[in-house]
Amino acid sequence: MTTRTLCTAALTAGLAFCFSSAGLAQEATELAEVATEVAAVNPNAAEAAADAVGGGTGYILNTLLFLIGGFLVMWMAAGFAMLEAGLVRSKNVSVQSLKNVGLYSIAGLMFWFVGYQIAYPGDFNGYFGSAGIMYPMQEVGGADLDTGYSVASDWFFQMVFCATTASIVSGTIAERTKIVPFFIFTAILTGLIYPIIVSWEWGAGWLDAMGFSDFAGSTLVHSTGGWAALMGALIIGPRLGRYGKDGKMTVFPGSSIPLATLGTFILWLGWFGFNGASQLAMGTVGDVSDVSKIFVNTNMAACAGVVVAIILTQLRYKKADTTMALNGALAGLVSITAEPLTPNVGMAIIIGGIGGAIVVFAVPLLDKLKIDDVVGAIPVHLFAGIWGTLAVPLTNGEVPFGAQITGVIATGVVVSILSGIVWFILKAVMGLRPSAEEELAGLDISETGIEAYPEFTRTT
Amino acid sequence: MTTRTLCTAALTAGLAFCFSSAGLAQEATELAEVATEVAAVNPNAAEAAADAVGGGTGYILNTLLFLIGGFLVMWMAAGFAMLEAGLVRSKNVSVQSLKNVGLYSIAGLMFWFVGYQIAYPGDFNGYFGSAGIMYPMQEVGGADLDTGYSVASDWFFQMVFCATTASIVSGTIAERTKIVPFFIFTAILTGLIYPIIVSWEWGAGWLDAMGFSDFAGSTLVHSTGGWAALMGALIIGPRLGRYGKDGKMTVFPGSSIPLATLGTFILWLGWFGFNGASQLAMGTVGDVSDVSKIFVNTNMAACAGVVVAIILTQLRYKKADTTMALNGALAGLVSITAEPLTPNVGMAIIIGGIGGAIVVFAVPLLDKLKIDDVVGAIPVHLFAGIWGTLAVPLTNGEVPFGAQITGVIATGVVVSILSGIVWFILKAVMGLRPSAEEELAGLDISETGIEAYPEFTRTT
Amino acid sequence: MTTRTLCTAALTAGLAFCFSSAGLAQEATELAEVATEVAAVNPNAAEAAADAVGGGTGYILNTLLFLIGGFLVMWMAAGFAMLEAGLVRSKNVSVQSLKNVGLYSIAGLMFWFVGYQIAYPGDFNGYFGSAGIMYPMQEVGGADLDTGYSVASDWFFQMVFCATTASIVSGTIAERTKIVPFFIFTAILTGLIYPIIVSWEWGAGWLDAMGFSDFAGSTLVHSTGGWAALMGALIIGPRLGRYGKDGKMTVFPGSSIPLATLGTFILWLGWFGFNGASQLAMGTVGDVSDVSKIFVNTNMAACAGVVVAIILTQLRYKKADTTMALNGALAGLVSITAEPLTPNVGMAIIIGGIGGAIVVFAVPLLDKLKIDDVVGAIPVHLFAGIWGTLAVPLTNGEVPFGAQITGVIATGVVVSILSGIVWFILKAVMGLRPSAEEELAGLDISETGIEAYPEFTRTT
Repeated sequence: MTTRTLCTAALTAGLAFCFSSAGLAQEATELAEVATEVAAVNPNAAEAAADAVGGGTGYILNTLLFLIGGFLVMWMAAGFAMLEAGLVRSKNVSVQSLKNVGLYSIAGLMFWFVGYQIAYPGDFNGYFGSAGIMYPMQEVGGADLDTGYSVASDWFFQMVFCATTASIVSGTIAERTKIVPFFIFTAILTGLIYPIIVSWEWGAGWLDAMGFSDFAGSTLVHSTGGWAALMGALIIGPRLGRYGKDGKMTVFPGSSIPLATLGTFILWLGWFGFNGASQLAMGTVGDVSDVSKIFVNTNMAACAGVVVAIILTQLRYKKADTTMALNGALAGLVSITAEPLTPNVGMAIIIGGIGGAIVVFAVPLLDKLKIDDVVGAIPVHLFAGIWGTLAVPLTNGEVPFGAQITGVIATGVVVSILSGIVWFILKAVMGLRPSAEEELAGLDISETGIEAYPEFTRTT
Repeated sequence: MTTRTLCTAALTAGLAFCFSSAGLAQEATELAEVATEVAAVNPNAAEAAADAVGGGTGYILNTLLFLIGGFLVMWMAAGFAMLEAGLVRSKNVSVQSLKNVGLYSIAGLMFWFVGYQIAYPGDFNGYFGSAGIMYPMQEVGGADLDTGYSVASDWFFQMVFCATTASIVSGTIAERTKIVPFFIFTAILTGLIYPIIVSWEWGAGWLDAMGFSDFAGSTLVHSTGGWAALMGALIIGPRLGRYGKDGKMTVFPGSSIPLATLGTFILWLGWFGFNGASQLAMGTVGDVSDVSKIFVNTNMAACAGVVVAIILTQLRYKKADTTMALNGALAGLVSITAEPLTPNVGMAIIIGGIGGAIVVFAVPLLDKLKIDDVVGAIPVHLFAGIWGTLAVPLTNGEVPFGAQITGVIATGVVVSILSGIVWFILKAVMGLRPSAEEELAGLDISETGIEAYPEFTRTT
Repeated sequence: MTTRTLCTAALTAGLAFCFSSAGLAQEATELAEVATEVAAVNPNAAEAAADAVGGGTGYILNTLLFLIGGFLVMWMAAGFAMLEAGLVRSKNVSVQSLKNVGLYSIAGLMFWFVGYQIAYPGDFNGYFGSAGIMYPMQEVGGADLDTGYSVASDWFFQMVFCATTASIVSGTIAERTKIVPFFIFTAILTGLIYPIIVSWEWGAGWLDAMGFSDFAGSTLVHSTGGWAALMGALIIGPRLGRYGKDGKMTVFPGSSIPLATLGTFILWLGWFGFNGASQLAMGTVGDVSDVSKIFVNTNMAACAGVVVAIILTQLRYKKADTTMALNGALAGLVSITAEPLTPNVGMAIIIGGIGGAIVVFAVPLLDKLKIDDVVGAIPVHLFAGIWGTLAVPLTNGEVPFGAQITGVIATGVVVSILSGIVWFILKAVMGLRPSAEEELAGLDISETGIEAYPEFTRTT
């Protein structure tokens, strides 16, 4: 009888005896009490033990975090859809709904076809690489305990991030962009541009090597979407009648504030998955505690963004602006996304509150520049994203400020150039805008043929 | 001192000593490293060990899957409500909202009163049986480690599936069916018809015995709802003015495309629970990996359904149809529901994409047959449900094609006959439709007295 | 070599040997089978063992319950927003949206600043105390195995409860209350009044000491919000034109029934977190089974509330009232909140059904008293909350009826007095209502300048 067999036999016998009769429940309880006392005395050892016990349990909990985070971030697609449906005029709501359903779907297909493999290419030069096409999902179901989570759950979580980037673009360029070129742009953004940027950092590329830090994507996701949206706005131009020749601006109010409000709440909810599950693990006491802290900081940054936006608009315009409050929430969320873990709550409130202030001042600024951003996505996702990224060193001493600036600039330059080229080619080849008549009549009629609210008469 | 006591004492002492001082944290860490190395070398053994460790932990995780899946599927009730509220005319929106809240509630009560006991009757003849009335919930709170999950969590998960079946019916027969007979039909569908069909397969009845496979209910849930809806549409007849005597069809456009879009996103989100939690366990590495793969396949089938619907309508009508894209998503989801686990992603995309195509071709077909399906539920849930069921053998070699056909036909025949009888009796006894005047004025006035949008003037 | 080292070495060696080769997977499987058999024979011992194994796993699962419960309850803020946006007239929808986003944000900031520390003051006199200001979140990320869950996750869960209380108020006093005083009242309610009440029971104060029981807050949350709303309604007065001098009442129908329906479904969904996670733990088989039972009872009470409201309105008015059905669901949910665990399903149905009946009879009663409650929050949250609290002893034999009455009365008296004082001061200092012209024009114009539906023409 080998030592091995002896050991196994002893453990088996021990377990069997330990629990074989009701009277021994008492002993098991005592065992539990000892373990609890030990844990109280020596939490570090207990935590290490908790990490050690059950590689399987850790794998399950890590995977579960990706699944929950994944469905929450997927739900953000609905948030963008409602936010944008509420902030465009009713004659474009049906097209905006279609764009949002379509972009999520295209993002999914492209990210599987090529995006994920560019974003996470493994060994590569650090700037651009690919691990092939059509992510091999035969591996997905496997139990790869090495990685600590199901590959498919991680893939799903990354895919919904990719879709978020595309969602940002659709809002800015709403009400004047045809469906087909928008969808082609979406395919390139989600299949190529976003993955390249992500590979630099989360794919262990050159930005990661220089110490850049972007916990859940203030730059990688939100600024990337923001730059792509900005280039779109510049190349497509403003909506007809938005900026008069006399320098006067016409406000085109959104068609449904409650839907915009709903969209904001959906995004807020989804952000718990966006930031929380970016911890990438909850199989240990330390990880799940970090996820909890991230939940609190994410929530409080959004709260601060709302309150700051309400106070500033109340002071400035004598009226608290509902849409500014909504965008204040989103700006607070974007601001805390680059580093939701290291700030204490007070700092999270400050970071989010400054995000809210950025929106209040940036929205009119864009209008002065005659950049027509229908939903305010550029202030929210680009400006607050830059702010959040630069604020990381304030609370995380390991992150060099220079790396943060480098990451912000590099992302801006590359996304702008690549997006600009794509928008420009699409403009030259097929045109980006409908005819003036079609735009004035609303894109719903010409682009989808389905009106959003066919029964309600309009004042405009 | 017996061996048993010795063993327990040794384990207790060992545990206490192992973690009793800070210096030993190092040893615990080494222990963890050994375990990790072992797991890397020998994943199968590690997985088996993970299964072995903590029957309690497995029970908790399995139960948690049912709870999360349950609340996600419950949320689908809101999805159907919004989808239908968006696709009916505004004069019927309030009644449609009431029907959706009411049917979910009736389903809950009936499934507790008698439905669950018919669906899961234990030993029975395989065709029809019952385990009594008023499911004995005194057992619910018990810790039954044998079953591997809380009985109440499973019951909740099954109940929300039952409600889904009823939701399907309400959309097809909207705008012309009185509330009271609809609710009575719902009670019989959820308390009797659906449970009988479920008992054949998930209740271990005759379909299960012959090898039929329907992972999350393309046939058992979606086709059952679809057949019941089809019989309702035939017996109730089309809405007044829908099909003219000259063979011309009048389109009654939906009142709110953004609400229909919201409903679709809600259903998409809920489907991760519908399909994912139908794995019925996540207490092992293998199970949670399967759940992850199901999430990916479910998502990708929906993406494909959307993109196919957009491309086909763009090609066919030169306009991408928003409502077709929404129904394309749902058809993709229904198609993958019969087997979301065995397909690789490429196959999931193909299965979902074909579902999307089915909708694009079936919706006009139904109109040619003068079957008035207000929201397109018959193409989405019945046709795509049949397709998904028949597609199972394509990726799951263990499932005989003959069994799939048998299941589809048997469900169709029995649900049609039983539903038809109920609809017919209700028609004879109390009438199914309001008067022509009431229907033309909208059911909101006559049936609930609460208008959905009392302030907005209508063009129609 | 000490015993300690010997023991560790033996365990290490045993673990390593046990899993070191593929052939031993068989042995691990046998070990698992033994464990399963043992569990079957002796569930109590196995459960105790499950509790004992992995303090870390229990901590993670408990924390996860708070996180899931927390985001579900956070989502209820969207539910209140949609419910209220749907039930006010369109000219006040934008302000109502703003109030709901704002109140949630203010609640978050105030609860961090001072609220949590009043609610959970540790050792105190039992009536009023505080553990300081600005909850020290530097502790939040720590791994405190003693408490059994992450402090931050618990804080988040408590914070969203606080926000719920404020949400209740905004609905009752809608359409006639200015934003600034409302937000100031919200700050005091969430930072002071609610925390004091909570400290009496969940903070281990005097109500807890006398045996009062309120599982998830029928009294502490819902009645507190209800009393504050009632005092607001009394002091602010009814909307202009609501109650004529001739004693006739004018109905002001809600602007969007589908949004109200959506809000109800959101609240229903969120309530699984509200009641389920109030179990405060799911790290043991017993706890997760209890959470499951709570899910079922919560769901069934709501179902019963709906069906009772439908039947009663159908009998009384010959029409099933959509908004009554929605409020029936909410009343059922509030009723079961005080004790969702001990009732069997039959009792949960009865408790929830009575809640539904209360709403049907109380809504017209309030109108007779000329108390203008725009959304019916007083019947739903206050009356059903009282009913649910008093019903606890029916199913939980450990709870004295006298304590329940005491808790109901004490909460009512103190919340009414404190709320009344605050409302009164605000009225005296800055005024609570806009001018008559502003109110008739709708608060959207004067208070936020953003109209909710700027394009849709109105009949009123």
